[in-house]
Amino acid sequence: MLMTDRTVVPGTTTSHSSILTENSCRVESELTELFRTRSVASTRLAEAMRYATLGGGKRLRATLVYAAGELLGARGKVLDAAACAVELVHAYSLVHDDLPAMDDDNLRRGRPTCHIQYDEATAILVGDGLQSLAMETLLSERFNPGDARIRAAMAEVLVRAIGDEGMVGGQAIDIEFTGMRKSLEELSTMHALKTGALIEASVLLGGIAALGPGHRVLDVLSRYGRALGLSFQIADDILDHTSDSMTLGKDAGSDDRQNKTTYVSVMGLDKAREEASRVCRDAVGCLRELEGDTGFLQYLAEFTVSRKS
Amino acid sequence: MLMTDRTVVPGTTTSHSSILTENSCRVESELTELFRTRSVASTRLAEAMRYATLGGGKRLRATLVYAAGELLGARGKVLDAAACAVELVHAYSLVHDDLPAMDDDNLRRGRPTCHIQYDEATAILVGDGLQSLAMETLLSERFNPGDARIRAAMAEVLVRAIGDEGMVGGQAIDIEFTGMRKSLEELSTMHALKTGALIEASVLLGGIAALGPGHRVLDVLSRYGRALGLSFQIADDILDHTSDSMTLGKDAGSDDRQNKTTYVSVMGLDKAREEASRVCRDAVGCLRELEGDTGFLQYLAEFTVSRKS
Repeated sequence: MLMTDRTVVPGTTTSHSSILTENSCRVESELTELFRTRSVASTRLAEAMRYATLGGGKRLRATLVYAAGELLGARGKVLDAAACAVELVHAYSLVHDDLPAMDDDNLRRGRPTCHIQYDEATAILVGDGLQSLAMETLLSERFNPGDARIRAAMAEVLVRAIGDEGMVGGQAIDIEFTGMRKSLEELSTMHALKTGALIEASVLLGGIAALGPGHRVLDVLSRYGRALGLSFQIADDILDHTSDSMTLGKDAGSDDRQNKTTYVSVMGLDKAREEASRVCRDAVGCLRELEGDTGFLQYLAEFTVSRKS
Repeated sequence: MLMTDRTVVPGTTTSHSSILTENSCRVESELTELFRTRSVASTRLAEAMRYATLGGGKRLRATLVYAAGELLGARGKVLDAAACAVELVHAYSLVHDDLPAMDDDNLRRGRPTCHIQYDEATAILVGDGLQSLAMETLLSERFNPGDARIRAAMAEVLVRAIGDEGMVGGQAIDIEFTGMRKSLEELSTMHALKTGALIEASVLLGGIAALGPGHRVLDVLSRYGRALGLSFQIADDILDHTSDSMTLGKDAGSDDRQNKTTYVSVMGLDKAREEASRVCRDAVGCLRELEGDTGFLQYLAEFTVSRKS
């Protein structure tokens, strides 16, 4: 295993930040094209699905697909399919989380949430349809050319990450314990499922696209993804507590308002910041086990805690 | 191609009805076992997913998987996986359709609907989790052993049937046009998507389990499934209009109450009954293109229009 040189080269950060922007534009353009080719009988549904997915967000999950995939030698459409799939799932989860029966949020990515812009019934169907579209993107040879074995493995990794044993399970704990005091362990479990599992799957999808299923490097990617997901969530709790809605593009302070247990409410702000940095270092530490230039993956781990929104 | 002998043998109907019951028990037992093996962090979510899926329904979609699959030579776990998957999707669609923002129904399979028994947030997550679990059941080698090419093809057929170009698209048109007068053509399109696509996919999954993707017999199965789905829906409209909630196990008359366009409201009761019979004969007609004993598939087509609930 090669140790990657971590000396900071002047300009490196700028260059990494421009790769992040490039990836974000790339997946935006792929998603736009994907929606253009759909033949959806309900114009309102088609429009609302585009509204909920396009034009916003950092596209962290997509960029993790590209970063892990390209590091390990995957190129082209297989990565685009996976990048679209994880962003479609992310968009679906936000639309359902924002519903009045769930977090009841009105603002997302600086715009009215889907059920405010359209209506609740449409928002429920938008989430349902985006989940299916994510899976179709991975499974259909038209979007994801190549070996059926890889397509099946990619689809399985995603669906296991987002279901009752993953993202949806985490969301259920979150709802179930709203207003109740959670321990740090319960909080970590909840976040590992609710946001961590999809972030981990994004990294893994890049890896499987390059190496196929069952490769030992996938374990390293899993550990990196899990740590990055956790540092991302701690930073999210900090931002919800310290930032404003204009900067975040979503309702700030909604955790406090809903009396949710967060890393800030359990540890206090300073300790939460230390914990985010510690977990970020764990993520970066995993990269030592990989060959090649892992600078961009390191940048992404650091970005999760340094971001302002 | 062999013409199947359609002479009615005394006792045949009874025997077909007992195969229907056997298949229904088989998928119930498989689903029970599936839920038993899940490791879901939220007890409430796990319980509500079981509540929404187990203990009810005719299991028509599962029995179509078994019937088509066994006719064409598939056996065992691959059919169980597909039968579970289509019933999980069906259960998810009912849970979301019943939500207050959608059809706002309180009664389903003779029991309180999921959001009444639990709460709206849980019901939204139950639907989301059941959709993922359906896909996982098809994709995971543990549930669906055998060739990755077949697993990927099965998962793709299901996901295409249930997404924005299928079931969810049909549900969106239904919601969009509630209270508006629809033409017969618009009504047919809506139902072909909303209920027809999943029924067609159920038949196809049995076929793919047996023959793999791309086989010409799958076209025949598609046509049979589409016709059966349509006759099922016309019969559903008739039952909603003529039956009572106790017999149906769900709120009768909800179409009339919500001022929905139905086959009965467009054609009148007698013409709707004739149309159901005509479409049922179309379904049966497709079976002539298949070899082997298609008696049970014929029985299922006829059952869709003769059923009382």
